[in-house]
Amino acid sequence: MVIILDRKATEAQVENIVKHLEGFGFQIHKSVGAERTIIGAIGVKPNFDTRNISILDGVEEVYRVTTPYKLAGRSFQEHDTVIKIKDVELGGNKIVMIAGPCSVESEDQIFRLAKVVAKSGAQILRGGAFKPRTSPYSFQGMGEEGLKLMRAAADENNLLVVTEVMQMDQIELIDQYTDIFQLGARNMQNFSLLKELGKTNKPVMVKRGIAATIEEWLMSAEYILSGGNKDVFFCERGIRTFENYTRNTFDLSAIPVIHKKSHLPIIADPSHATGLRDQVPPMARAAVAAGADGLMIEIHDDPENALSDGPQALLPDTYSKLMEELRLIAIAIGRTL
Amino acid sequence: MVIILDRKATEAQVENIVKHLEGFGFQIHKSVGAERTIIGAIGVKPNFDTRNISILDGVEEVYRVTTPYKLAGRSFQEHDTVIKIKDVELGGNKIVMIAGPCSVESEDQIFRLAKVVAKSGAQILRGGAFKPRTSPYSFQGMGEEGLKLMRAAADENNLLVVTEVMQMDQIELIDQYTDIFQLGARNMQNFSLLKELGKTNKPVMVKRGIAATIEEWLMSAEYILSGGNKDVFFCERGIRTFENYTRNTFDLSAIPVIHKKSHLPIIADPSHATGLRDQVPPMARAAVAAGADGLMIEIHDDPENALSDGPQALLPDTYSKLMEELRLIAIAIGRTL
Amino acid sequence: MVIILDRKATEAQVENIVKHLEGFGFQIHKSVGAERTIIGAIGVKPNFDTRNISILDGVEEVYRVTTPYKLAGRSFQEHDTVIKIKDVELGGNKIVMIAGPCSVESEDQIFRLAKVVAKSGAQILRGGAFKPRTSPYSFQGMGEEGLKLMRAAADENNLLVVTEVMQMDQIELIDQYTDIFQLGARNMQNFSLLKELGKTNKPVMVKRGIAATIEEWLMSAEYILSGGNKDVFFCERGIRTFENYTRNTFDLSAIPVIHKKSHLPIIADPSHATGLRDQVPPMARAAVAAGADGLMIEIHDDPENALSDGPQALLPDTYSKLMEELRLIAIAIGRTL
Amino acid sequence: MVIILDRKATEAQVENIVKHLEGFGFQIHKSVGAERTIIGAIGVKPNFDTRNISILDGVEEVYRVTTPYKLAGRSFQEHDTVIKIKDVELGGNKIVMIAGPCSVESEDQIFRLAKVVAKSGAQILRGGAFKPRTSPYSFQGMGEEGLKLMRAAADENNLLVVTEVMQMDQIELIDQYTDIFQLGARNMQNFSLLKELGKTNKPVMVKRGIAATIEEWLMSAEYILSGGNKDVFFCERGIRTFENYTRNTFDLSAIPVIHKKSHLPIIADPSHATGLRDQVPPMARAAVAAGADGLMIEIHDDPENALSDGPQALLPDTYSKLMEELRLIAIAIGRTL
Repeated sequence: MVIILDRKATEAQVENIVKHLEGFGFQIHKSVGAERTIIGAIGVKPNFDTRNISILDGVEEVYRVTTPYKLAGRSFQEHDTVIKIKDVELGGNKIVMIAGPCSVESEDQIFRLAKVVAKSGAQILRGGAFKPRTSPYSFQGMGEEGLKLMRAAADENNLLVVTEVMQMDQIELIDQYTDIFQLGARNMQNFSLLKELGKTNKPVMVKRGIAATIEEWLMSAEYILSGGNKDVFFCERGIRTFENYTRNTFDLSAIPVIHKKSHLPIIADPSHATGLRDQVPPMARAAVAAGADGLMIEIHDDPENALSDGPQALLPDTYSKLMEELRLIAIAIGRTL
Repeated sequence: MVIILDRKATEAQVENIVKHLEGFGFQIHKSVGAERTIIGAIGVKPNFDTRNISILDGVEEVYRVTTPYKLAGRSFQEHDTVIKIKDVELGGNKIVMIAGPCSVESEDQIFRLAKVVAKSGAQILRGGAFKPRTSPYSFQGMGEEGLKLMRAAADENNLLVVTEVMQMDQIELIDQYTDIFQLGARNMQNFSLLKELGKTNKPVMVKRGIAATIEEWLMSAEYILSGGNKDVFFCERGIRTFENYTRNTFDLSAIPVIHKKSHLPIIADPSHATGLRDQVPPMARAAVAAGADGLMIEIHDDPENALSDGPQALLPDTYSKLMEELRLIAIAIGRTL
Repeated sequence: MVIILDRKATEAQVENIVKHLEGFGFQIHKSVGAERTIIGAIGVKPNFDTRNISILDGVEEVYRVTTPYKLAGRSFQEHDTVIKIKDVELGGNKIVMIAGPCSVESEDQIFRLAKVVAKSGAQILRGGAFKPRTSPYSFQGMGEEGLKLMRAAADENNLLVVTEVMQMDQIELIDQYTDIFQLGARNMQNFSLLKELGKTNKPVMVKRGIAATIEEWLMSAEYILSGGNKDVFFCERGIRTFENYTRNTFDLSAIPVIHKKSHLPIIADPSHATGLRDQVPPMARAAVAAGADGLMIEIHDDPENALSDGPQALLPDTYSKLMEELRLIAIAIGRTL
Repeated sequence: MVIILDRKATEAQVENIVKHLEGFGFQIHKSVGAERTIIGAIGVKPNFDTRNISILDGVEEVYRVTTPYKLAGRSFQEHDTVIKIKDVELGGNKIVMIAGPCSVESEDQIFRLAKVVAKSGAQILRGGAFKPRTSPYSFQGMGEEGLKLMRAAADENNLLVVTEVMQMDQIELIDQYTDIFQLGARNMQNFSLLKELGKTNKPVMVKRGIAATIEEWLMSAEYILSGGNKDVFFCERGIRTFENYTRNTFDLSAIPVIHKKSHLPIIADPSHATGLRDQVPPMARAAVAAGADGLMIEIHDDPENALSDGPQALLPDTYSKLMEELRLIAIAIGRTL
């Protein structure tokens, strides 16, 4: 932590500041300049609230030097984490594809779509069984029945499964059916849930909260990592801004930023980011070109009758055509898909 | 719902659109203008996803006519809801004051501060026993022991208690000690928790999510109301914007907007909105002047040693002085405090 | 400037960083800690682009210590600036009121409204003669004719005049009719215009850009001050956020923040901030309670036929009633109005 | 325009609303439903302020049906505009590259860099001669001398020139040296300047304001088009959001959105969008993959000594390598570069 003192800080104030810092356990380095004094406070307190110092008399500004996360950072682990999920590797050279409907709606629907997903060369089937909905009057998902159907459809097509867990007491149930726990954007700071997921031994996909800074996102991963679960990856799905032509603003810069600050993989979800079908292909291409380690895409073969988010689902044909383009872009940047 | 057709929509497209609307159960009113046709689709489907229509060929724009919330709206109940909590009325002419520390830290601390709160004329004691923290390494609250201490301190000073519930399985425990459940900003869209709170019979204070629109906030209240619990009120505590000199941007306009759209009371929390002690008094005054039905303010008599959010806590003296100013402002706008 | 070095920075990298800093003219203070080294770079370079250092190998983070503005800051002048405009003082204990129509529309209109303004006890008449409009097809103002009418209406009622200057070549013309130049939100970073206004000897009201940080706002004032014009004040008029129920989000926290960081006065414009008539009175009250040195309010006696922004104009009766409330709130916080 | 009436609107209110609409020149279509009445108001008033109706008693909501822009919209011209600038075509299948330094700094510098630009296969040289700077104390550009040098350097390398015009009285001067006028982000709503550019006969590149919605951006183009200049194209360069790890948030979704709503070309500027050199290559690749008609990239061969924005400039080698990747991505999506 670096403390910039006011030009007019008195000696008594400086002493008081130093006393406080020492009381918090910091080592002090004082630099007396011509115009003002700077104090460097060294110590391993990743979660220290710097406002404790900034309110003291004589202090002008306080800067935190260390990042508040440790395990998620590049300085903790220099090489990229590659997550192995059965025979799929996420975070390596090969870009991983996740596809499927927003919600599992029926046996017929999920089996039909799982076939499309497998045929396209994707590795993981997505689908919601418990749906977080802004309205209490909307379809809330098929529950356990949906989980069973999705597992069976995935197994028949040699796919893995990812599905969302919305609350702590669903973990045990969902664990029986899924290969990856999805932590939804609205739960990114549900700290109770984060702690419980840290105790599981399955990979967790952390979707970015719509107003989450990259640092907060890394802290959510830190919660899971600090519980002992090392298999965490991120999913960028758009942030809320003043622009509302698209449902969210897809922050693709987050991909190289996460790759710089963290060793954990990051994928992107252009379906939720844009909310509109015709925006999905260009944004999927852009995400791969920006360096995403994977994509998650919603598809549906009857979107007009989908029970949730039909308007953002790609039709199987558009999806297959997109996959061809993505393969070429992957090659252009030295990866495979 | 109003559907604006494309200037070049063909008859076949119009027929297809009408067929879909009827399939969804809407009644149709068609207005054929010189330049384009407008379709009015009448029906009570508050949570209909309008994108289901906007993706059809021949459609230019779709507007939802009804609000997605019902029970929370002014058109459902014209008069203001006044929530009675023992002998305190929230939402009437008298402005209700909630004060206390961010976290319960010790028996001594909470009893000392409860005395300050009662003496100032406030009615409700606040304090966290389970703390949502962005870092897994931060103080996480005293748990049940904190609840017991806060209840005892409140009882001794004839105060009510409000405290945060972070997860479903805490409801039963917290219910034994609190008079009001606080739903934190990060849980505003934790729909599982909202549903459970709808089954309780204690008032719920819904803090606004940092990126929540006013409509989404109303929908969170709708979840609780639709579960049968009629005693819901809002707490504005700042939204996230590009300006980061203050911790959040205090959206005081939300106060008259909520009063216009809803019959439920709304209070304001200048401590979390600004995050800095010297910003709290002017923003507390502004909130009362803007029409807030109550305020929640953090106080501490030793903020430098507080275990959480010390920098935003008012000292007892500043708080008492502020209460005097607030009383005069209340009078200026025809209310009491 | 403070430079935090990477844990793994080599000696050669540190030397290179130091060499660069010295090349830029900084004095160096190096603190070698157990885990990492911190360099303090002292020197008066208010506008140094810190990214020049942050891109060097071995650097982890760089923090600017000094503010980029000088003349606008409290450390340059401790006491509040009070601007004298004829017999009106802005920035003192008395809150100054500016009122009038959005645009000057006719002789009759501006004389009628000037009378209302004067009768209410306000000191300054507002009105646009050259209007910045998002659409090229909208009413663009009466031009010089509007200026003449406004000046005459103000003189007859013993009022001062404030009006917007949109481009450099209008300064000379507008200077003949106005007492205060208004710099509009969209021109806050029109640096050519700022420089020219710095050469005038009339007060300049700098409206905040809808996406301007407080620091950028202070820098715009700095442009004018550095040109020699000392009479600058700010006008908060709302910022753009994700919430769009109100036209903008009125950032009232900016009032105490500006008062802390700068010696210049700040007023507030609730009409443009909210864009809706029924939001204006509560937000006007809140601005006074938050410590604004003045208010600017749009009024119209026939808003349905106003040529611009009618929906946000207060009717004369509502305006008069509001003035009464504001007087009481001013007293409550120890000021007059 | 569609007006949704309040459930409880009286007949007198409905009559009054209809009278107002007719007064404004609209044709009326009334749909009386079981629960409420909807009024369709037909008429060509692209810039009508709908708040004029929304404030009338009995009105619940008002929706504008037509877009406020005409000439810039797809419904005005279905086929893509291809802008011919000498022998370069912008908006066709071939992606156009613009590169060069942030500012022209010296004869030597601009000639060296022009050579790099030409060799890489780019068609247009960029460089600022008049620089908009947030600080009055920063380098403000070389002025006309810079223009002359850039023109000469471009001519020697068979390149076109694009440079920024900051104020109306610079148009005539800059017109002598440039092939394209750049309208900077801070001037996107400088309406006086927009009008003057509409009278020129050179292409105008409209950079997006940092807080501009896509609709406002289209309206700025409309100003120029309505003045008679048909050669307008857009440049996405990032918007301001709560995330501040990157300088701005690069809104790549704007590319397909503009292509859908408008016939005008759109390019992207990853250098200003991210502000950091190591973010430029992934974001440049993403912009091409998303469908940009061109890119503008800042390069410098001595960025540590650049007079402005050195930290975001690519080194010539990195830039050449990037061009190779971009060529492959262009092919992957069926275009050339």
